Amino acid sequence: MKIDETSKQELVRILGDRFTQNAVLIDQHARGEGHLPAAPPEAVCFPVSTAEVSAIVKICNGARIPIVPWGAGTSLEGNVSALSGGICIDLSRMNDIRVVNAADLDATVGPGVTRKQLNLFLRDTGLFFPVDPGADATIGGMAATRASGTNAVRYGTMKANVLALEVVLPSGEVIRTGSRARKSAAGYDLTSLFVGSEGTLGLITEVTVKLYGVPESIVSGVSHFQDVESAVALVTEMVQLGIPVARVELLDEQTIVAVNRYSKLDLPVAPTLFFEFHGSAASVTDQVKQVSELIEAHSGSKFMHSIDHEERNRLWHARHEAHYALLAMRPNARVYGTDACVPISRLAECIRLTREDLERVPFFVSVIGHVGDGNFHLGMVIDPDDVNEWELAEEIHDRLIERTLTLGGTCSGEHGIGYGKAKYMHWEHKNALGIMAIVKNALDPNNVMNPGKILPASPEWPSRNLV
Amino acid sequence: MKIDETSKQELVRILGDRFTQNAVLIDQHARGEGHLPAAPPEAVCFPVSTAEVSAIVKICNGARIPIVPWGAGTSLEGNVSALSGGICIDLSRMNDIRVVNAADLDATVGPGVTRKQLNLFLRDTGLFFPVDPGADATIGGMAATRASGTNAVRYGTMKANVLALEVVLPSGEVIRTGSRARKSAAGYDLTSLFVGSEGTLGLITEVTVKLYGVPESIVSGVSHFQDVESAVALVTEMVQLGIPVARVELLDEQTIVAVNRYSKLDLPVAPTLFFEFHGSAASVTDQVKQVSELIEAHSGSKFMHSIDHEERNRLWHARHEAHYALLAMRPNARVYGTDACVPISRLAECIRLTREDLERVPFFVSVIGHVGDGNFHLGMVIDPDDVNEWELAEEIHDRLIERTLTLGGTCSGEHGIGYGKAKYMHWEHKNALGIMAIVKNALDPNNVMNPGKILPASPEWPSRNLV
Repeated sequence: MKIDETSKQELVRILGDRFTQNAVLIDQHARGEGHLPAAPPEAVCFPVSTAEVSAIVKICNGARIPIVPWGAGTSLEGNVSALSGGICIDLSRMNDIRVVNAADLDATVGPGVTRKQLNLFLRDTGLFFPVDPGADATIGGMAATRASGTNAVRYGTMKANVLALEVVLPSGEVIRTGSRARKSAAGYDLTSLFVGSEGTLGLITEVTVKLYGVPESIVSGVSHFQDVESAVALVTEMVQLGIPVARVELLDEQTIVAVNRYSKLDLPVAPTLFFEFHGSAASVTDQVKQVSELIEAHSGSKFMHSIDHEERNRLWHARHEAHYALLAMRPNARVYGTDACVPISRLAECIRLTREDLERVPFFVSVIGHVGDGNFHLGMVIDPDDVNEWELAEEIHDRLIERTLTLGGTCSGEHGIGYGKAKYMHWEHKNALGIMAIVKNALDPNNVMNPGKILPASPEWPSRNLV
Repeated sequence: MKIDETSKQELVRILGDRFTQNAVLIDQHARGEGHLPAAPPEAVCFPVSTAEVSAIVKICNGARIPIVPWGAGTSLEGNVSALSGGICIDLSRMNDIRVVNAADLDATVGPGVTRKQLNLFLRDTGLFFPVDPGADATIGGMAATRASGTNAVRYGTMKANVLALEVVLPSGEVIRTGSRARKSAAGYDLTSLFVGSEGTLGLITEVTVKLYGVPESIVSGVSHFQDVESAVALVTEMVQLGIPVARVELLDEQTIVAVNRYSKLDLPVAPTLFFEFHGSAASVTDQVKQVSELIEAHSGSKFMHSIDHEERNRLWHARHEAHYALLAMRPNARVYGTDACVPISRLAECIRLTREDLERVPFFVSVIGHVGDGNFHLGMVIDPDDVNEWELAEEIHDRLIERTLTLGGTCSGEHGIGYGKAKYMHWEHKNALGIMAIVKNALDPNNVMNPGKILPASPEWPSRNLV
């Protein structure tokens, strides 16, 4: 689909030089941070208001021009690639923090506000926004992908933390979903329908999120284990006991090697758990005591924990940089990342079988995860030009998802579907996929909203327009 | 719409005497527990399997016979009334507890399992299901209504506690939504779409819910205050401080009068808060200490708290019986109940203005609420045959909802919409209601699924078939 001359003129009239076909900018908007091939849009728009987004969408829908929304471009499953060309709508300039209601613990922000920007803004309020996917993603993008990350075990995912949305529909109409009330039984949960819809049903132009009081006490800690099984067994017990841990991350030996090298740490090379505890001083002391006992029971190393802010930051910064640490393990590499989530009782088995499957793999692989949620990732450090490596990674991925689904899990804990996982949607949802297609078709009958994402657009998926 | 003879014969062939047109049973299925007029179905079916539900739905959809699902009949907004006649599908015989995964803290149950039945079953496992709307509702009905109740401030509503569903669609097709994984970013959140859809999109035939470990320590307590404002101010501060209270209920003076009389208590007649704290012994001690300080700061009565199981039960039983306590205040009365939820910072104002509006009302009115969520109810004890009282209650209700929406709230915190609140859907959702209608029409093009609920079916709403 080419952008026709009339539409282009209309877009330029509205946006001026904030409509661009500059090759560098187009190239920058062709892919996220994942392993998948790029697919460039034909043009990029930089709207600064909901009215502009609405006008762009109306023009594109009328002319059947595909629309791909863009936040920070940190997604991992090709969620932002323009498979069918068309217009990329970069929402990063709609990055104003509109209202902070400290008394109600909520904030309303433009879709382009990033999570770090919001937390910086909140610094002196005693409040924070917990959802933390690692990358400095936009709140709009995180809502669209139903993101989560390290804090989700305590604070929930974007599903739990988005109260309300403003959405531009394919028609250009603007609706509001939800309210600032903490709960509602007033009709269909449109907020939850748009959260996780990856721009395929409408474009999110405002998000109201929950905030939390900065805990009185925060303690981080680390312990390493003889094997991954012991670490996972500990986490499983911890969850079953209802210890309200704020973060618990597994890093296997390989991840520790990469992280030590990249972040200049000297952690023992062994399966390791990073913990963080939030609460009143009394509650945190109590949690640390309970977890220390579990660590001892699972023969973990002496629990090194600290309330020191610098030390905490060093630990979590290293965790968040893991993706880049893996990239640095091999020149010109790409990290083929996966994302699986199973019921916690099946996590040990899922990771064990997956590690067995990786035994003879010729490239570096990291196992890392938000294990308190039953969620983990493989980071396969492949040469993107080596067809054999690529195919092997694909096969491992397929087997991982098959295993995950057999164990009662889901093909994506937090990265979303994009086009990288669209084929797994059949495996996971079976005939419920038909209902998703009915909803998609009802709301976006011309299939202009991020086509080819979540729901495979056509049998020849995903061969179109990939570069 | 009359049930045609062919459909009737088919239903009898499948169900035998579990298809009935018995007048007593029809009458029993004409209304829930709310104030609204009854509307009887033409027949009641008692399926015992998903296959039977599917067969019934297929027949009804083919013949355009309206379908109304029924759980325990405890809903309050006419959610189960058969406004257009048709078939009531009573799911109460599908009350088998199918799987309890203690290790994963989840359970899968038939839709007819009640919350008390589930908790009785779990008694020896150390686990419990927290969502507690007061009435012994079915889990299927609670999912369909997006119910919540006293524990929601800590454990969330059904939105947060339903992991997966089995749903029979209008076509008779059976789908599964969600999985037992604790989070997912795999496509549209169909689970959340059906939770709260009140049987208008499909019938829930299986529910997977989260369970929680019974806390090591549970403490309940009570304190009364000089005025409602002080009590609400305390709760607001408590929420803002992030004290993880499990329950906090406001009962105004009138409610205390009714509850004292009905449940044979001798609580001082003053605005009162009931509290409950869950956690480790250390955490609960800490919470009690913090709340005791807040009570003192707001001049509440000395905090009477107890871990005694009997005493706790007496308190919460009295709270749960409040509806019946109100009914007992006046012979042949009906309780016209409302349900409003606002951001917590606006709760004091909303309750103050509402109480001002009630000053010259000639009937008994109770103000009661799950105030930690910003949610409260009026219980107006009216003579249902007195048109003036009825109209006055309606006017108070309208003004309450107008006020609630002005303050950023929602017209239903937990009772759902049924047909009692359908008109408020326009007020609250404005043009987003059109999107709900598109979704409804896409999934139920013949409008056979609980017609007239949530979305007003026609301009002459709700005058049809009311008795």
